[in-house]
Amino acid sequence: MLKTRFTTAFDVSAPIMQGGMQWIGNAELAAAVSNAGGLGTITALTFPTPAALAEQVKICRDLTDKPFAVNLTTLPSIDPPPYEEYQAVIVDLGVPVVETSGSNPAVFVQSYHDAGVKVVHKATSVRHALKAERAGADAVAMIGFEAAGHPGELDVPLFVLLAAAARRISVPLLAAGGIANGAGLAAALALGAEGVLMATRFMATAEAPIHQRVKEELVARDELQTDLVFRQLRNTARVSKNSVSQEVVSILDAGGEFADVRELVAGRRGRTVYETGDLEAGIWWAGLSQALIDDIPTCAALVERMVREAEETITTVLAPETT
Amino acid sequence: MLKTRFTTAFDVSAPIMQGGMQWIGNAELAAAVSNAGGLGTITALTFPTPAALAEQVKICRDLTDKPFAVNLTTLPSIDPPPYEEYQAVIVDLGVPVVETSGSNPAVFVQSYHDAGVKVVHKATSVRHALKAERAGADAVAMIGFEAAGHPGELDVPLFVLLAAAARRISVPLLAAGGIANGAGLAAALALGAEGVLMATRFMATAEAPIHQRVKEELVARDELQTDLVFRQLRNTARVSKNSVSQEVVSILDAGGEFADVRELVAGRRGRTVYETGDLEAGIWWAGLSQALIDDIPTCAALVERMVREAEETITTVLAPETT
Repeated sequence: MLKTRFTTAFDVSAPIMQGGMQWIGNAELAAAVSNAGGLGTITALTFPTPAALAEQVKICRDLTDKPFAVNLTTLPSIDPPPYEEYQAVIVDLGVPVVETSGSNPAVFVQSYHDAGVKVVHKATSVRHALKAERAGADAVAMIGFEAAGHPGELDVPLFVLLAAAARRISVPLLAAGGIANGAGLAAALALGAEGVLMATRFMATAEAPIHQRVKEELVARDELQTDLVFRQLRNTARVSKNSVSQEVVSILDAGGEFADVRELVAGRRGRTVYETGDLEAGIWWAGLSQALIDDIPTCAALVERMVREAEETITTVLAPETT
Repeated sequence: MLKTRFTTAFDVSAPIMQGGMQWIGNAELAAAVSNAGGLGTITALTFPTPAALAEQVKICRDLTDKPFAVNLTTLPSIDPPPYEEYQAVIVDLGVPVVETSGSNPAVFVQSYHDAGVKVVHKATSVRHALKAERAGADAVAMIGFEAAGHPGELDVPLFVLLAAAARRISVPLLAAGGIANGAGLAAALALGAEGVLMATRFMATAEAPIHQRVKEELVARDELQTDLVFRQLRNTARVSKNSVSQEVVSILDAGGEFADVRELVAGRRGRTVYETGDLEAGIWWAGLSQALIDDIPTCAALVERMVREAEETITTVLAPETT
């Protein structure tokens, strides 16, 4: 197996973390990834109340005796979810790892550490990675421009972002965005990561709680079939290109404001896509790594294969070329 | 040394090519790279006439007995340079390798091959790479979104572009954009490349015929200090961020057309920056790899170090983690 400072510090056998995914990251998926030797993640805000999150944590504990994480993204909001209550669940139930993003981690790292919870903070820039390290994060995930979800506004792809971060960050780095196979894992390790964080790739697994048609669509699509929506509002999200994402882009390109797309976005939700398999029902997440997805394996098969492919890349593709 | 199908087919000892660079790629730089074991490139259109290019090829032959390349980018134009005369120089003088981009390579590959000239075609998409392979290109360089110059309009970063191309292309692939050190070389090999093509990194070498202040600026800058100009005209170029690039972006963002920036661009040229070291004198090339440049070595020291770093990455960073 591939051993790194990440696998040692987080007590996992494979340097592969499943990142937070709204409406997708439930206890069953997290447990499947953790049982496979990676680090699975329950996405807190997918569940309507802190009590519902607590129930998920308990289900996950029943399904695995391995470490797992809870994702809790905290953003400034007019009508925020009860973040502190969700945090209290993570702390009180002694969840092994929390995946954070959004706010400055200095605000919450200490309270997690006091409860023995390790913190993986997601950052889209070297500056934010340094801030997370100073705040005490146990690992930092560098989110490249390739990633689904919120890759930030700086458009620095993983190859350079990771290499630039590796020069200045001492805690273990995870590489995120554009990775779906063992070659990507080996490349990330070469560039200075000690593991990878994947979301899109885990959507196309047997255990992901989304409609089969969405998984098949991820297998079918290539690197040209995503959109960057909300770019004009400086809240860029990388999503699957469909009629809804195209409509949002064209309204905002024409000078529209958030108010002009609010109804469209609220009425046509990704959650409906995941539940019904109607690919045009709303905006749904997909990163550029979809170009590299060919099948819908179990999480166990995926993690095992990626580690084996990475080892093969290192021993057969790279090593024999050195003499 | 790192042996690949590229080093074998192109008869070089290091899997490192110096790509074409307008106003920079002269005989002395090309010979320095080739003497270092890489593949150096003279940039044809830097020289005002086909006769001047022929003179450069002769100088390069005097300086090295190793293979070298000439870059000739052919683009549709109202008032084009005499492309066929430049091509005739490459063919008549038996230049070992030509680096091409822009037009469909099917038009010219056969005439180069008839003269024993190998063709490296630069592509910014898998579709164009497939076209180049079908046309008979001997190698294809995949140009990621990170690259200086013209990274295309599709914004696919190297990590995914290279991995996606490697699944469908049989001829040797080079990786371009965002690479400046041995870790990047090792990562590119892991993702399926058989070598790397670098331009920005070679600007910051002792032999690059540009003002020292430009080289020092490349050392100083980070991954946030480039601009994408002419994006609105669908002719995107990645350049160093300065007052001129910012003015061009803001004029075009405000709805301006090419006519509105033509004078600005024509009056303030990159060539002046390279000659005088006045960093605000015009628009000049720089890719995201500038974030990873720390020094101004000779080409020999750079190539030797990159190969050694790549080997160290493979043998010490990657291999010991497998048990």
